[in-house]
Amino acid sequence: MPKNREAARASLENLYRIFTVPEAPDSTLGAIDQAISDDVAGFLQTYIVAIERSLEEIEAHFSSASIPEEPTYVSDYTEFVKEHLVAHSVHTAAPGFVGHMTSALPYFMLPLARLMTALNQNLVKVETSKAFTPMERQVLAMLHHLVYRRADDFYPPWIHNSQSALGAFCSGGTIANVTALWVARNRLFAPDGSFRGIAQEGLARALRHRGCDGIAVLVSERGHYSLGKAADLLGLGRVNLIKVGTDAHNRIDLKLLREECRRLRERNILPLALVGIAGTTETGNVDPLEALADFAQELGCHFHVDAAWGGPTLFSDRYRHLLGGIERADSVTIDAHKQLYVPMGAGMVVFKDPTALSAIEHHANYILRHGSKDLGSHTLEGSRPGKAMLVHAGFHIIGRKGYELLIDMGIERAKTFADMVRQHPDFELTSEPELNILTYRYCPLKVQQALATAPAGQRAAINALLDQVCQLLQKHQREAGKTFVSRTRLRVARHDQELTVLRVVLANPLTTDEILGAVLAEQCEIVQQPEIQALLQQVEANFY
Amino acid sequence: MPKNREAARASLENLYRIFTVPEAPDSTLGAIDQAISDDVAGFLQTYIVAIERSLEEIEAHFSSASIPEEPTYVSDYTEFVKEHLVAHSVHTAAPGFVGHMTSALPYFMLPLARLMTALNQNLVKVETSKAFTPMERQVLAMLHHLVYRRADDFYPPWIHNSQSALGAFCSGGTIANVTALWVARNRLFAPDGSFRGIAQEGLARALRHRGCDGIAVLVSERGHYSLGKAADLLGLGRVNLIKVGTDAHNRIDLKLLREECRRLRERNILPLALVGIAGTTETGNVDPLEALADFAQELGCHFHVDAAWGGPTLFSDRYRHLLGGIERADSVTIDAHKQLYVPMGAGMVVFKDPTALSAIEHHANYILRHGSKDLGSHTLEGSRPGKAMLVHAGFHIIGRKGYELLIDMGIERAKTFADMVRQHPDFELTSEPELNILTYRYCPLKVQQALATAPAGQRAAINALLDQVCQLLQKHQREAGKTFVSRTRLRVARHDQELTVLRVVLANPLTTDEILGAVLAEQCEIVQQPEIQALLQQVEANFY
Repeated sequence: MPKNREAARASLENLYRIFTVPEAPDSTLGAIDQAISDDVAGFLQTYIVAIERSLEEIEAHFSSASIPEEPTYVSDYTEFVKEHLVAHSVHTAAPGFVGHMTSALPYFMLPLARLMTALNQNLVKVETSKAFTPMERQVLAMLHHLVYRRADDFYPPWIHNSQSALGAFCSGGTIANVTALWVARNRLFAPDGSFRGIAQEGLARALRHRGCDGIAVLVSERGHYSLGKAADLLGLGRVNLIKVGTDAHNRIDLKLLREECRRLRERNILPLALVGIAGTTETGNVDPLEALADFAQELGCHFHVDAAWGGPTLFSDRYRHLLGGIERADSVTIDAHKQLYVPMGAGMVVFKDPTALSAIEHHANYILRHGSKDLGSHTLEGSRPGKAMLVHAGFHIIGRKGYELLIDMGIERAKTFADMVRQHPDFELTSEPELNILTYRYCPLKVQQALATAPAGQRAAINALLDQVCQLLQKHQREAGKTFVSRTRLRVARHDQELTVLRVVLANPLTTDEILGAVLAEQCEIVQQPEIQALLQQVEANFY
Repeated sequence: MPKNREAARASLENLYRIFTVPEAPDSTLGAIDQAISDDVAGFLQTYIVAIERSLEEIEAHFSSASIPEEPTYVSDYTEFVKEHLVAHSVHTAAPGFVGHMTSALPYFMLPLARLMTALNQNLVKVETSKAFTPMERQVLAMLHHLVYRRADDFYPPWIHNSQSALGAFCSGGTIANVTALWVARNRLFAPDGSFRGIAQEGLARALRHRGCDGIAVLVSERGHYSLGKAADLLGLGRVNLIKVGTDAHNRIDLKLLREECRRLRERNILPLALVGIAGTTETGNVDPLEALADFAQELGCHFHVDAAWGGPTLFSDRYRHLLGGIERADSVTIDAHKQLYVPMGAGMVVFKDPTALSAIEHHANYILRHGSKDLGSHTLEGSRPGKAMLVHAGFHIIGRKGYELLIDMGIERAKTFADMVRQHPDFELTSEPELNILTYRYCPLKVQQALATAPAGQRAAINALLDQVCQLLQKHQREAGKTFVSRTRLRVARHDQELTVLRVVLANPLTTDEILGAVLAEQCEIVQQPEIQALLQQVEANFY
């Protein structure tokens, strides 16, 4: 506390001012809001990333580990933020930023997100959310309906049922996937006679009870890295996340899957869950979900579909069939901050069986009491914001048909871009787009031709050099800040080898064919740099 | 897709409009934003909760499980939201809403949160966050410094180190606590010779490797329910979350703790972590952290402090000493959406050892590559918004001294309210405030006197009736919507019994002594209702 009382009173008054919602239009608040809006708008129209500063230079402005003693004026702080944070953030909404799962957002999301922040509801319990709880329950029911297409009379007994939840609203797909596998694990080891269930007794006793030596999750090698975290977190161990090889289209190989299951049986390891992917992160492919559903049924294990990316394809009359079989999944993850076009930090998981989430149900004395409709009794997270409102808004304002248009456009644009890559002599398509993601690499036609006939050793040497080209190309393009693609490493069937490839995600409706042409044109310019030319000369030296 | 091409084009144009940031001031966006602002301001000044509608009536407006086929006009949707969602949400910022861990927010949080949403950065990786990554790393370093007070030269090698992270920014305290115990578990079973560590091999093999029959987490019975979720999730089982009895001040009983540890040894169960609480959720008490640090050292186990609520007490020169010993914790959870006054959905965990988070480190091919500064390689969650910015803003704009004022005010107001309760003949204080939380119940003086001398059976009968009074009182007050306190069940040492009590949290700087007086006055009115009077007559019948 300040030493003299006058200073103390002045500080207190400042404090009250900071916390008071101004009754009349407040010039300070309005000015900041305006300054920020102007700046964002200006910024968003100019850059993808600010090009003039390296990460290390930026770090210099965020290097003190001491919380300042004295308060700073809001205006001074806002200036700092504009200059050092906003100006050096990434324009994830730019139509030329096609390397990650980002997009422009529908404009109504911004004022509604602001409303959500202002109301500051906490969805863990009805007492701090009231109408937001039924709203979130409805959003989960709508997603459930999108996936499972149950008849209208299925929902009334469940949607607002205090004993259950049709799904869980999460901070993202990782928590959604973890929740799904947590539920699967707890259902596999449900209470049984004197065994009180894994939730109570733990994994070691659960394994003893069932007389097995471990439990495993099976997914293709294209599975998202969050599944590895889940396997670690849930106590399975990463070795028991079985990554099954894929076919030429990055879909799980069913024959290899059967072999892996046989090996698990030999090791006395129980299959906990089979995970199908609807839209792999790196290539956008969809596993054969019908066949996986059959196989999960045969194994008697949980069938989870990670549709974090591809789930909204279900909006499309034309492409919905690609996800055929998803309605047989025990649980499905769909991210709202991806193709539902909601701002960052919103994922969902829905369960076919409306009582499934009881497997992780929990209560407390001060909230989440038995019989309450508090959503927190069925979620991994505790306090949560009212983000479901933004999904609710999207569902209503964009509507099923609006989302269908977005999905169709993305898939068709990916086909167009694939054609552009295929027709360009200097690029090689490394994965065919099934949804709206594809990969390719820089590989001049004559190198492609040489690779087609070269012996294995020579191919490996050439591809290693092309990997370096790809890495540098992506880095320089990112640093130039005009357009952006990402990169990954991927086993490419045609080459029977893991390659570094460029990755493009086409979900931003503002991305045009012209912009995609510019992405390729910029890449052709970048490879002219001496560093990359030297590598390409080494490539040629390998086959001449 | 619409059937004729003209309709299709019209739809597409609408879609583009929805996704385009208007260059000139846009009347639609501006109008919605204004309508929402006006409405929120109006709403926030009138109600705590809308009183005229029950949850069941509200549910009727959120009962369809079908995503609408056709788009809705933004203006129509906004009207719906105002009428059915905003008007029936809870005014968590109201100064009379003192039942949960909510508060008015500093006004600058709103425009900054809006900026954050507009920029839509994804903190999982530098490629979608650039300057936001160093900013978040700084925030974690500042929190680390607040807790551990390491010398200035400690931080430069770690703060922006690509190999490590000083902590993890999370969606809330639950994920923070889970992360802490996950790290503890993985460090306890680190790779060792041919054993590749629990992350790889799983819990069952880890236990075999160490030759133990289980692992346990010890915490007082006042521990937050998220620890139960963590014990379930991590495979320990809830029976191995040992809830140790507390003393008369709701602090862990060290003698009982020793006994529990002895019992664990007898059962060949290894103590994984000892959890101290700095601000229990229900009563705001602080465990003897120094003594717990000593004991954890003796046991050789991880010492975690759940300071989700009480952590910011460290800002106060006057009250910091209450948390003495926290600097010896291996990990500490502090929620930003509690006493750092950030909007919902922000928690943090910091680790004393800057390499601790390596125990859960993970990588992928397309992001989080070895050597990158991507924060996602050390977090449980994947994609995350730039919420750290709001903590950064609070640290700078409010400053250490500003937070100190807030903390001091809250603690002093709790003391004032405790005096008011004590001096009122009809209320009984059931937990003395140590920080800014306290509990009490309605219990007229003559009942208090009767209880002091009544035999055990009679006391139990009376307390059971008073529990019902308490429950009804809290319910009616909540439904009246003028002021709000919460309730919980708590073993109260004086009565040697678990009682239903009212709970008050005093963190909102706009809460005045007058408002607290009104809370008690309203409660005295509510108990005049015939339903409650009948219960009170039964109480009297018990001792006359």
